Amino acid sequence: MLIRRWLIGIPLATVQASRERLSKVVALAVFSSDALSSVAYATEEMLWVLVLAGSLALGWSLPLSLAIMLLLVILTVSYRQTIHAYPSGGGSYIVAKANLGELPGLTAAAALMIDYVLTVSVSVSAGVAALTSAMPALHPHGVGLALLAVGIVTVVNLRGIRESGRTFAGPTYLFIGSLLLMLLVGFGRFLVGGLPLGQAAEAPAPIAGLTLFLLLRAFSSGCTALTGVEAISNGVPAFRPPESKNAATTMTWVAVVLGTLFLGITILSHLYGLLPREGETLLSQLAWQVFGGGPLYYLVQAATMLILILASNTSFADFPRLASLLARDRYLPTQLAHRGDRLVFSNGILLLGIFSCALIVIFRGSTHALIPLYAVGVFLSFTLSQAGMVRHWLVERGPHWRKSLLVNGLGAAATGLATGVLAVTKFTHGAWVVALVIPVLILWFRTVHGHYGGTEEQLSLARYHRPLVPKHITVVLPISHVNRALIPVLEYARSIGSDIRAVSVDLEPEETTEMKAQWGVWGGGVPLVILPSPYRSFLAPCLGYIRELREKNPDGWVTVILSEVIPARWWQNLLHNQRALIIRAALLFTPGVIVTAVPYHLER
Amino acid sequence: MLIRRWLIGIPLATVQASRERLSKVVALAVFSSDALSSVAYATEEMLWVLVLAGSLALGWSLPLSLAIMLLLVILTVSYRQTIHAYPSGGGSYIVAKANLGELPGLTAAAALMIDYVLTVSVSVSAGVAALTSAMPALHPHGVGLALLAVGIVTVVNLRGIRESGRTFAGPTYLFIGSLLLMLLVGFGRFLVGGLPLGQAAEAPAPIAGLTLFLLLRAFSSGCTALTGVEAISNGVPAFRPPESKNAATTMTWVAVVLGTLFLGITILSHLYGLLPREGETLLSQLAWQVFGGGPLYYLVQAATMLILILASNTSFADFPRLASLLARDRYLPTQLAHRGDRLVFSNGILLLGIFSCALIVIFRGSTHALIPLYAVGVFLSFTLSQAGMVRHWLVERGPHWRKSLLVNGLGAAATGLATGVLAVTKFTHGAWVVALVIPVLILWFRTVHGHYGGTEEQLSLARYHRPLVPKHITVVLPISHVNRALIPVLEYARSIGSDIRAVSVDLEPEETTEMKAQWGVWGGGVPLVILPSPYRSFLAPCLGYIRELREKNPDGWVTVILSEVIPARWWQNLLHNQRALIIRAALLFTPGVIVTAVPYHLER
Repeated sequence: MLIRRWLIGIPLATVQASRERLSKVVALAVFSSDALSSVAYATEEMLWVLVLAGSLALGWSLPLSLAIMLLLVILTVSYRQTIHAYPSGGGSYIVAKANLGELPGLTAAAALMIDYVLTVSVSVSAGVAALTSAMPALHPHGVGLALLAVGIVTVVNLRGIRESGRTFAGPTYLFIGSLLLMLLVGFGRFLVGGLPLGQAAEAPAPIAGLTLFLLLRAFSSGCTALTGVEAISNGVPAFRPPESKNAATTMTWVAVVLGTLFLGITILSHLYGLLPREGETLLSQLAWQVFGGGPLYYLVQAATMLILILASNTSFADFPRLASLLARDRYLPTQLAHRGDRLVFSNGILLLGIFSCALIVIFRGSTHALIPLYAVGVFLSFTLSQAGMVRHWLVERGPHWRKSLLVNGLGAAATGLATGVLAVTKFTHGAWVVALVIPVLILWFRTVHGHYGGTEEQLSLARYHRPLVPKHITVVLPISHVNRALIPVLEYARSIGSDIRAVSVDLEPEETTEMKAQWGVWGGGVPLVILPSPYRSFLAPCLGYIRELREKNPDGWVTVILSEVIPARWWQNLLHNQRALIIRAALLFTPGVIVTAVPYHLER
Repeated sequence: MLIRRWLIGIPLATVQASRERLSKVVALAVFSSDALSSVAYATEEMLWVLVLAGSLALGWSLPLSLAIMLLLVILTVSYRQTIHAYPSGGGSYIVAKANLGELPGLTAAAALMIDYVLTVSVSVSAGVAALTSAMPALHPHGVGLALLAVGIVTVVNLRGIRESGRTFAGPTYLFIGSLLLMLLVGFGRFLVGGLPLGQAAEAPAPIAGLTLFLLLRAFSSGCTALTGVEAISNGVPAFRPPESKNAATTMTWVAVVLGTLFLGITILSHLYGLLPREGETLLSQLAWQVFGGGPLYYLVQAATMLILILASNTSFADFPRLASLLARDRYLPTQLAHRGDRLVFSNGILLLGIFSCALIVIFRGSTHALIPLYAVGVFLSFTLSQAGMVRHWLVERGPHWRKSLLVNGLGAAATGLATGVLAVTKFTHGAWVVALVIPVLILWFRTVHGHYGGTEEQLSLARYHRPLVPKHITVVLPISHVNRALIPVLEYARSIGSDIRAVSVDLEPEETTEMKAQWGVWGGGVPLVILPSPYRSFLAPCLGYIRELREKNPDGWVTVILSEVIPARWWQNLLHNQRALIIRAALLFTPGVIVTAVPYHLER
């Protein structure tokens, strides 16, 4: 408990919950880290695929990036409409469930939950890669560093983080600024021709043909650049009024910055002839070529690492929020629905931390290995959200609904197509895992929902009639030793009823005789029944006797009172057979039987 | 439960326990497997040490074997006296404790427990080595096979094994017969000079000088041949009358057979110029040289494997028996003292199985790596047992006590010397583990003993006076929802007392208002107290209220009655917060408070 207090902090009162309204400049920092940080790996992931077809194929990175930019424009315009239509926050789960029904809603929810876990694993792995690129000595400790980072982010979130501008603005604008500077200097050097090509990497021999399938795979990998752009649509109420208008404007800004950075990095990498390689990220190579290893190089790496950790942090806000929405709709256990004593959804945060750590360990902290699982979920939730908006306009038919329908229809079609491409091209590389987990999650959601529904029905008092009548109580005291712990048991038994009987088992004839004698002295007149036990078990004959009593008296209660000796130290429990626990567990499913333990506290 | 029944069998009644009396021929088979089986590895382990000093040093195996034989003779004569002095079974723990006191007794017990675990690990590893020597394809699966063997022996023992002649006589006499045949044929071939020296192995370059220390180390390794010779002294009551005389005679037979086999194998290996090597046991090489790979070779390997598994089986009888003796003397948890429903000490058997598997995994099933840990414990218990006998004669002074004193004195001195040699020469190779574990075990025994003594004292009714007076009961019903599960709670509360109050926590004002209204309808006139909860916790305010009630009424009981909704399937428990469990745990250490859960069973 002390460790917990030190790590997590003292409880916070409900009245301490407050909502800070964000200006556009600050909101950009708060909501864009997930989206912007993906430029740290998107270009590299695209090149990893293209390089399979040899160095000549790398030129395809430019048209593919343009296609991805087109998708970004469509997404931005579409989501601006969602922002206006759902000013209280329009996550994919809410939009899809409200407009398309339960199954699409749950599909979006499952896709999002997977996506949040992957965002943490991918971002932290990429952030650690930025660090180990700059400090190769740390490379062998990648997995450990990633787990440490997830641990720190988890604890910080359990303490409760204010999504305040101060935390986010610094790293985000540092990242944007240092990358823009790198692009400027890089293009400048290229134009004046003073390009120090340095150690131009040798392209490996092509091991695959340049097929359409390969190009689509590269496109899919590049699409990871778009993950996180929907973040603002979840957070509209956090903006200063007019909320929707400010949010929509900020969304456009994010798209412009994201597009500039992604396109700039892709073109510059191509101009500099860079190849992806193990042990150093593409962005690190690029910064090194441009700045030549000076302090500015280390600034880029530090800013990249910071924004990637911040990006993982956004999942720690989104995952527990989505889990609590699902829990309130009874698709997840209720334990996920409530805020803990630090005003955060502690169980959801812990769950996310555990799942992401598991992924990091399984994939040994390799961004490259995790990427094929990523993005499919994101794009599936994009598609469902857009499709939900299409349905929304068809039903609502507000002003300009035809134009809005067209925009979201285009968004749904484009993201749907991209989802299809992602699923097919990445299927054998890992997307099959997602294709397997989504239906399993949906099944789990529905099973949970069914259980809660059934429970409520069975516990409902509507149309229920049962008069409250006191019933006869038969008290049974199972005795194995006559000692001090028995005195409070007898006292308590006498306080609650008058039909009392003690029961014991004949294990050793000598002990039984002695017990009978002692009972005569201390039993206070309560009759003692001795049961035979051919199989040396104490439990079985007792349970049989209790069930028999219950059958003889089906309308009353049978109360079993046990003495429970509580040792002074926890480890001493190992030295006592846990008879109270076992009897309680064994009788849990016998109706009409109530088990009570009267504790007797040892002092040492 | 069904799996358990299938694996372990139905319970056996106490009256089914019977004791079979053994003839000398059968008793030899039952009690000698541990001792005889050690010839399968003792010579090899001695050669592994000598070969460090080059092939010329191997000749020292003969004088070392003679020294070990001398020790065997001394041990046999000494133990024959123990057999006569303790006809009801004289294990080292009993003899040392009765004659030397608690600490030597516990030391012997700790040494024996370690020894039993090691007997299982070493024997099974060596048995698997006999198998993989004959079938090299199985070599990579050695650890798996060893764990499987331990698993099978554990289950067989949990079912309860009759130590019947049938099980033991076959493999033991097969082993003795086939090894004697091998020795006869082997010496015969040597004498007629038709020795097919075959692939005479090349000795590796010496990496150590032939020092006295090395010779003593080789002697220590060879001493493993003597492990298990004490077995008969534990089992005297199993012999046909006159028990002691028959047991002593059998003990002599065992020593003669053991000496013949060990000396024969050592001499023949030397004559054939065999060297220990990885992947094939020395005994397998010898049998191959003698029989040339025919069916007789496979017979020797099969018999060796069988007797080694049987040897491990004897530990499964001895370890749980010793554990139950210690548990009855309150040096180990009581759970180890009682026979299970198959008339065996199930907990001890399980514990031995788990420990031996752990050792096999840690040492990767290598007999060679385990040996340095072995034998030290055995010889320590020999020494303590013999020293106990010395004390016994000094105190008893029966007829011929001087002669007996001399014999056991010689035994104690010889085994004590051997223990010292073993501990010193093997210390850095693993014996330090044993030197560390023995004191830890003794400390644990004494801690357990202290706790049980303290508990008995605190629970004793001697000089205890407390009149049985009924007390006032305050009933508290913590309520979070008004539903059907509450009806039996109210009924039960009314049946046991009249001072009842319900208590709830104000988490959501709307829900609280609704609850108050529902309580008006269903609460049956019981007052409802609503507690504030600034930190959104249900538990903390409830616990505070209950503790307050208790303080106001220190002489009475506070009974907390909870409704416990029991789902129809186990996994559904995940979907309910375990409030009853948590409240019970939180109030366990508050005196005078009794927690009772009234179950409500869901049907689906």
